[in-house]
Amino acid sequence: MNTTIETILNHRSIRKYTDEPVSDEQIETIIQAAQSASTSSFVQAYSIIGIKDDEGKKKIAEFSKNTHVEHASRVLIFCADFYRHELLAENKGESIADTLESTEKFIVGITDTTLAAQNAAIAAESMGLGICYLGGIRNNIESISDYLGLPSHVIPLFGMTIGYPADLSNPKPRLPLHHVYHEGKYNSNVEVYTNQLKEYDETVSSYYETRTSGERQDRWSDQMTSMLSKQVRMNMKDFVQGKGFNKS
Amino acid sequence: MNTTIETILNHRSIRKYTDEPVSDEQIETIIQAAQSASTSSFVQAYSIIGIKDDEGKKKIAEFSKNTHVEHASRVLIFCADFYRHELLAENKGESIADTLESTEKFIVGITDTTLAAQNAAIAAESMGLGICYLGGIRNNIESISDYLGLPSHVIPLFGMTIGYPADLSNPKPRLPLHHVYHEGKYNSNVEVYTNQLKEYDETVSSYYETRTSGERQDRWSDQMTSMLSKQVRMNMKDFVQGKGFNKS
Repeated sequence: MNTTIETILNHRSIRKYTDEPVSDEQIETIIQAAQSASTSSFVQAYSIIGIKDDEGKKKIAEFSKNTHVEHASRVLIFCADFYRHELLAENKGESIADTLESTEKFIVGITDTTLAAQNAAIAAESMGLGICYLGGIRNNIESISDYLGLPSHVIPLFGMTIGYPADLSNPKPRLPLHHVYHEGKYNSNVEVYTNQLKEYDETVSSYYETRTSGERQDRWSDQMTSMLSKQVRMNMKDFVQGKGFNKS
Repeated sequence: MNTTIETILNHRSIRKYTDEPVSDEQIETIIQAAQSASTSSFVQAYSIIGIKDDEGKKKIAEFSKNTHVEHASRVLIFCADFYRHELLAENKGESIADTLESTEKFIVGITDTTLAAQNAAIAAESMGLGICYLGGIRNNIESISDYLGLPSHVIPLFGMTIGYPADLSNPKPRLPLHHVYHEGKYNSNVEVYTNQLKEYDETVSSYYETRTSGERQDRWSDQMTSMLSKQVRMNMKDFVQGKGFNKS
């Protein structure tokens, strides 16, 4: 196994950091790594906003309801972004708004942004830094968007805290490989599927039991059903459509 | 610079492969790497379908209109997938269809799938393999979905070819770092932005000129305006809604 794969397999979200700061040079390398990811038809449909001042981190912590954000050295906000493309088209007297509004370009924007973000994550982790994604920025997406001054065709998708880890838990066990990976065709044999999920429930329970000295024994299936029975962030459709995305 | 960052910065899409096969063990490591990526609230909302037989590759090549697919050792199809969650909820007599239909969960599905895919890409490249993403599978998304036998709440987002590279071009230059990376707030100063894009047009022209011995001098801004003025894959909304995504 090479060191890159070791870094990847060793991933866990880090929410506790030491006071050691992440440098501007490290952030620059992380952004270069992000930019090196594949991009759909070379479109590079994203921007990244870096926050290092205490007030900015406090705001993001409040809006995202993630208190740990205040204690990270850096926060990056990853945004799907077609603003620059819109500007270029306008300068040529052309309109591309109809295309940008399509579900297809919404998919492209999210995909491009996420490819870049995961490169940033791996690059940071390869330097010994810890990261945690913040889907929580969508808890108050309007406020975050206003605070960052995002123009039309720019939406904040998720954040990422970065810092030196003060806490290294074990990586969380994932679904059985052959549940997620199918050969040739999708294998939705309900019996096989259900048995794999039962096996995984036991794996996850043991993980929590060991980690909490027996206090917690959550099953993944209960966690998922509980989480997914709650309607959250139901304003997302209006927000993204208001920014010119996902309308047609 | 460490070897992981070197691998990341050295990325270019590979569309020509040698005949050397990628082994099942390599694919297994690549899938483990994919599964190690962060996942929104531990939801693991994706599946990966691996294709190695000639007929399967031929089908994907036809549907995606990417002839190079036939010559890759392996093809992976990355799908956003809430089918297993739906099954778990059904088994408990609960319904989560309303939540799964939200724009929020559409974002979660695309993000989770893409984080996993980019880990797969980096893992493959770290082993000396080359990869190319296939957004083209969305050219015939209905046919691909039928061919793979995808149930409700599963949508194919993109593919990835994997093989030993027969051709190593130079990495393509990316947008200026400070055009994509903003500090503190989004900087949409139109003059600065426009100048950065002009500078980048020259960079991209030089890249193509060198690569094609002067035959091609495309400017990025022309490529983008031309591509984005064409409405493509406008059936995406109906398709994803038909699969139970992105309705509310």
